[in-house]
Amino acid sequence: MSVLIVGSTALDSIKTPKAENPRLLGGSASHASVAASFFSPTKLIGVVGEDFPKKYLALYQRHGIDTTGLQILPGKTFHWSGEYEENMNNRRTLLTELGVFETFSPELPKAHQGTPYVLLANIAPALQHHVLDQVKRPKFVVADTMDLWLNIAFNDLVSLIKRLDGFVLNDSEAHQLTKEDNVFAALKKIHKMGPKYVIIKKGSHGSILSGPKGFFICPAYPLHKVVDPTGAGDSFVGGLMGYLATAQGSIESNIRRAMIYGSVSASFCCEGFGLVRTTRTTRQEIDRRVRELEKMTAF
Amino acid sequence: MSVLIVGSTALDSIKTPKAENPRLLGGSASHASVAASFFSPTKLIGVVGEDFPKKYLALYQRHGIDTTGLQILPGKTFHWSGEYEENMNNRRTLLTELGVFETFSPELPKAHQGTPYVLLANIAPALQHHVLDQVKRPKFVVADTMDLWLNIAFNDLVSLIKRLDGFVLNDSEAHQLTKEDNVFAALKKIHKMGPKYVIIKKGSHGSILSGPKGFFICPAYPLHKVVDPTGAGDSFVGGLMGYLATAQGSIESNIRRAMIYGSVSASFCCEGFGLVRTTRTTRQEIDRRVRELEKMTAF
Repeated sequence: MSVLIVGSTALDSIKTPKAENPRLLGGSASHASVAASFFSPTKLIGVVGEDFPKKYLALYQRHGIDTTGLQILPGKTFHWSGEYEENMNNRRTLLTELGVFETFSPELPKAHQGTPYVLLANIAPALQHHVLDQVKRPKFVVADTMDLWLNIAFNDLVSLIKRLDGFVLNDSEAHQLTKEDNVFAALKKIHKMGPKYVIIKKGSHGSILSGPKGFFICPAYPLHKVVDPTGAGDSFVGGLMGYLATAQGSIESNIRRAMIYGSVSASFCCEGFGLVRTTRTTRQEIDRRVRELEKMTAF
Repeated sequence: MSVLIVGSTALDSIKTPKAENPRLLGGSASHASVAASFFSPTKLIGVVGEDFPKKYLALYQRHGIDTTGLQILPGKTFHWSGEYEENMNNRRTLLTELGVFETFSPELPKAHQGTPYVLLANIAPALQHHVLDQVKRPKFVVADTMDLWLNIAFNDLVSLIKRLDGFVLNDSEAHQLTKEDNVFAALKKIHKMGPKYVIIKKGSHGSILSGPKGFFICPAYPLHKVVDPTGAGDSFVGGLMGYLATAQGSIESNIRRAMIYGSVSASFCCEGFGLVRTTRTTRQEIDRRVRELEKMTAF
């Protein structure tokens, strides 16, 4: 089955202590869609400006991503610039130019409205709502978010959470949302807000799923070197939804393995700037890392 | 088989945002020995003053801990006092009174010198060396440490690491020791310093083993509430060594499960002040949490 992914489509200028890379393909929808594309047919919903490089459209196409829902509008593509500290965990935003994103209203092509798997990747909750309003009886809806929306669109986010099957956020966002320091206490509170499945991302410490079958403690794939973690969380949730959409059987029986696939997708993302490393991987290489994680967690 | 454990034996006065508990039984050797005692015969090497409460000697005895190697000297027991912040991760030391610890020289009773499993729990590296000098052909020697020794006894610690089968430290200590931000890069460097097995503790994020069979990503047991994390790392390594000492088969084939047992031991430690919760647990309760962790990591 196929996955519909809405989110940001951006140009990212990323600075690390080792290197500087201007105007890479970025944005939550780009990272999530490329990650998902290794598993399922993927439909991207987003917006770019007239300055959007053709090579990036070609990249989407090479991954078989359906870009019927990608609007190309007069104006500039959303441009984000950030800088990482030596430890590659702390980053600060240097610049945010919304460009065409400022007035973006995601419109679903008719053919997309029945997509069974819907990923509302990180984007304003009002836009996530608007996409959800246009899909018909989806099988599984998951949303990701970021601290910005907790700060400036709290009520929109809370009403969105009610509508989700699965909600993904990181540990500091979970703390901000629930005022709980303890991850497991936070998970309990988030379930009460609506979703059957809640996933808390912990970066290099992996992630935790809470669902009807209890907790799943999902490892991160060990990396000796992190080149650029931008988009790792988007790749995680993209890989997760891409895998789920193709797996046989129930969500419940597949979601743990889907998280492992998400984790591996994120590992490739971190190994290169922007999407450079992710686009070079293969399903075989992904499966190899999944088998390695199986070995690294067996006891 | 039995485990010999040397480390600090102390009175801990612990303050958290919720409560204050003076003069609890503490110290690395106390936590590690009680954790180990659920699995194997355990011999404690340490020192206390004449003020050491009889009820704590009784506690050791109730756990079948051999205290032949516990010196009771004129003077005061080592007293540590610390305060935790709201998130229960950051703590600051309020007071350290070394007391009889100041002149402590651990001497092994003859009967202890052939103990096959030796745990050099957190204590000055010079004292860890001194204990190691007295044991005859041990089967497996593991040491734990803390940031203090990296700061004030770096060379002693480095020469100790050479003599170990296994070395346990936390992630910030690994960074301090190797100057590597990345845990996996740090592990590689620490192996080059000597030990076949290196374990990096990451608190509530679990721990990582690096050994001849590659990495093992060990989860922490999920706790909804942490009452007092003091001694969790000592309990981890105590449970690990206690389990290893009784398990049939090679170290290599048992060490992963031993870490899981260590992880569960640490979880009980965190659920009460000092050793209050740990002393109340049972082998059955420990095994139950191990089975839960099996379920929470299967995919």
